[in-house]
Amino acid sequence: MRLLQTFAQNAPRNRRIISTAFSTLSHNINSNATSFGIAFDIDGVLLHGSTPIGGSPKALTRLYTDSGDLRIPYVFLTNGGGVPEPKRATELTKLLGVNIKPLQVILGHTPFKQLVKRFGNQLVIALGKGEPAAVMSEYGFKNVLSMDEYASCFENIDPLEQYKKWKIDDHKSGSSILTSLRNDPFSHQVQAVFILSDPVDWSRDIQVLCDILRTGGRPGKETSHQPPLYFASDDLAYQALFPSERLGMGAFRIALEAIFNSIHPNNLEYTSYGKPQPLVFKNAETVLKQIALTARASSQRDGEDCSFKRLYMIGDNPYVDIKGARQAGHPWFSILTRTGVFKGKQNHVEHPADMVVDTVEEAVDFILRKESIS
Amino acid sequence: MRLLQTFAQNAPRNRRIISTAFSTLSHNINSNATSFGIAFDIDGVLLHGSTPIGGSPKALTRLYTDSGDLRIPYVFLTNGGGVPEPKRATELTKLLGVNIKPLQVILGHTPFKQLVKRFGNQLVIALGKGEPAAVMSEYGFKNVLSMDEYASCFENIDPLEQYKKWKIDDHKSGSSILTSLRNDPFSHQVQAVFILSDPVDWSRDIQVLCDILRTGGRPGKETSHQPPLYFASDDLAYQALFPSERLGMGAFRIALEAIFNSIHPNNLEYTSYGKPQPLVFKNAETVLKQIALTARASSQRDGEDCSFKRLYMIGDNPYVDIKGARQAGHPWFSILTRTGVFKGKQNHVEHPADMVVDTVEEAVDFILRKESIS
Repeated sequence: MRLLQTFAQNAPRNRRIISTAFSTLSHNINSNATSFGIAFDIDGVLLHGSTPIGGSPKALTRLYTDSGDLRIPYVFLTNGGGVPEPKRATELTKLLGVNIKPLQVILGHTPFKQLVKRFGNQLVIALGKGEPAAVMSEYGFKNVLSMDEYASCFENIDPLEQYKKWKIDDHKSGSSILTSLRNDPFSHQVQAVFILSDPVDWSRDIQVLCDILRTGGRPGKETSHQPPLYFASDDLAYQALFPSERLGMGAFRIALEAIFNSIHPNNLEYTSYGKPQPLVFKNAETVLKQIALTARASSQRDGEDCSFKRLYMIGDNPYVDIKGARQAGHPWFSILTRTGVFKGKQNHVEHPADMVVDTVEEAVDFILRKESIS
Repeated sequence: MRLLQTFAQNAPRNRRIISTAFSTLSHNINSNATSFGIAFDIDGVLLHGSTPIGGSPKALTRLYTDSGDLRIPYVFLTNGGGVPEPKRATELTKLLGVNIKPLQVILGHTPFKQLVKRFGNQLVIALGKGEPAAVMSEYGFKNVLSMDEYASCFENIDPLEQYKKWKIDDHKSGSSILTSLRNDPFSHQVQAVFILSDPVDWSRDIQVLCDILRTGGRPGKETSHQPPLYFASDDLAYQALFPSERLGMGAFRIALEAIFNSIHPNNLEYTSYGKPQPLVFKNAETVLKQIALTARASSQRDGEDCSFKRLYMIGDNPYVDIKGARQAGHPWFSILTRTGVFKGKQNHVEHPADMVVDTVEEAVDFILRKESIS
């Protein structure tokens, strides 16, 4: 019902769509190229935890030819992370039943690669659930330690440690810098901190982050200039398996900031990546172009411009996905699903999407009709 | 040097002290009763972790006769906790080498006993390091569950659980209410939340507290009136074994409050106990009177009034111990040590103590001289 209403409301635009349909369709047949692309959020759109939702496997197969070639360029644009992109691609392939390439997986921390030039040889700390230090190593950071490894160099830094009979497995760096720190925790100063995914041990992480950030990277010493702090996202909440939203990295940032600002003369300084930042959408557009060009490699129209007429962001979180697409502007078109954070009957009031659907399957259906693709 | 300076500054008062010394001394000899009492903070004054500091064992023995009878009424007045008072008394006896009675141990959560009348039969949650549910059970709460027990009734409530391979041991309630909740998590609503000591698993605890407090005690359901929330203290930081202060329950409260207020239409409501609240000092005075009366039981002066002329608060945290004693006013006299949070050369600027000493041994020495006790 909602799909039909939107078509009716957009009648003049629809006429333009139909008139270009033939050229688009022949474009597809001849070159497997399209003038549009899609970015999918994952949690609350394609998956709930590890369970596909909203007809996601079926929706994704529609983006491939019968012989399994990609016909519509698309990416996964998520604020989640904590594992290397190739590993996430493998996981998603298994869960969703289509062949996903690492290039298609844009995680919250994917842009951290760009900071290798600046910090590649310096001692940096990586934290969050999963394997944050392994991710950073693969990006090319040569002296990255996990929070577990770094905190282990400081006796009694976490007074609650005796109550936590747990082990978090992370990248065993084997780097000489860890050996050096174990002998002398002040042999190196932490130069930057990267938070790649939701931190797990908040009490320890907030304590040690305050120690690092207050002292210029030398826990227990006198206060000094704060090292740079980077967050892969700032999501306050997200839809996981529990009926109501779960707190995200943005909540951790709020907690850290509130505490830091109450014990330190200067306010916490940090940079947050991830949707809804416009740069994230700009980067997604670049990646979609790469994917489109790769699909077009054997096409007859090699010289053709690959600017997209439209890029669809399908997401469940108005504050993250829809706000981001709106701020990014042309060529982004936002589609809001009801399978995650947003559950309203109408549209979101503060960040209204261009289109609201129940499921991702409806979203893909809408897109293909709109773009006159069968 | 500092001790002498203070005596000189207080010369007129000293003359009054000397003139009453004889009567005080004979008072002691005859009745083992005194007109003063002492409250000791623990962390940063008597102990660092489990290690006695500042000559504390020796200082405490001076409060006993040679035959081991208590001659000066004193209590431990700490914002710490998480274990029942008798257990803490046993621990302190072992660490400090004097025979400490449970009545002498006033923990942050000791006043929670007074809430048994209101919540004794209702489902309440107790959290923090140690054995918070066991403590509450011993106070008389009949349906108290630990956060571990309660959270285990809600599948997927903590999306980070899979990353935490740990177990926190707490009071196994064996109560029928837990069985009931495991069958139906909404069979009972949480009526109040008590935080007795520093929470350990902040990510889980903040998440589930938000769930409970936002919904009127029914995680995952719609928002409703917030149940009462009680904190045993509000210490932002305290001195543990690490060179610089560690974050305390006040930091947890700041984090919870900042997050709750950003996801809920109403601000978090809560009550914090512990120093520097004036009621805590009033209560300590009552307990000291009880102790003094007990010591006087065999005295010849049974009908004598037991009002204290002076009560000494020996602490290391100006924002907690000294501010509290100052706010409580007469008969409290504050002594600040340098073995904990405070390390300054002079006095604290914002909350100046009546006396500043290096160690608790100096503090006791000062008190006994001031009160003309050998």
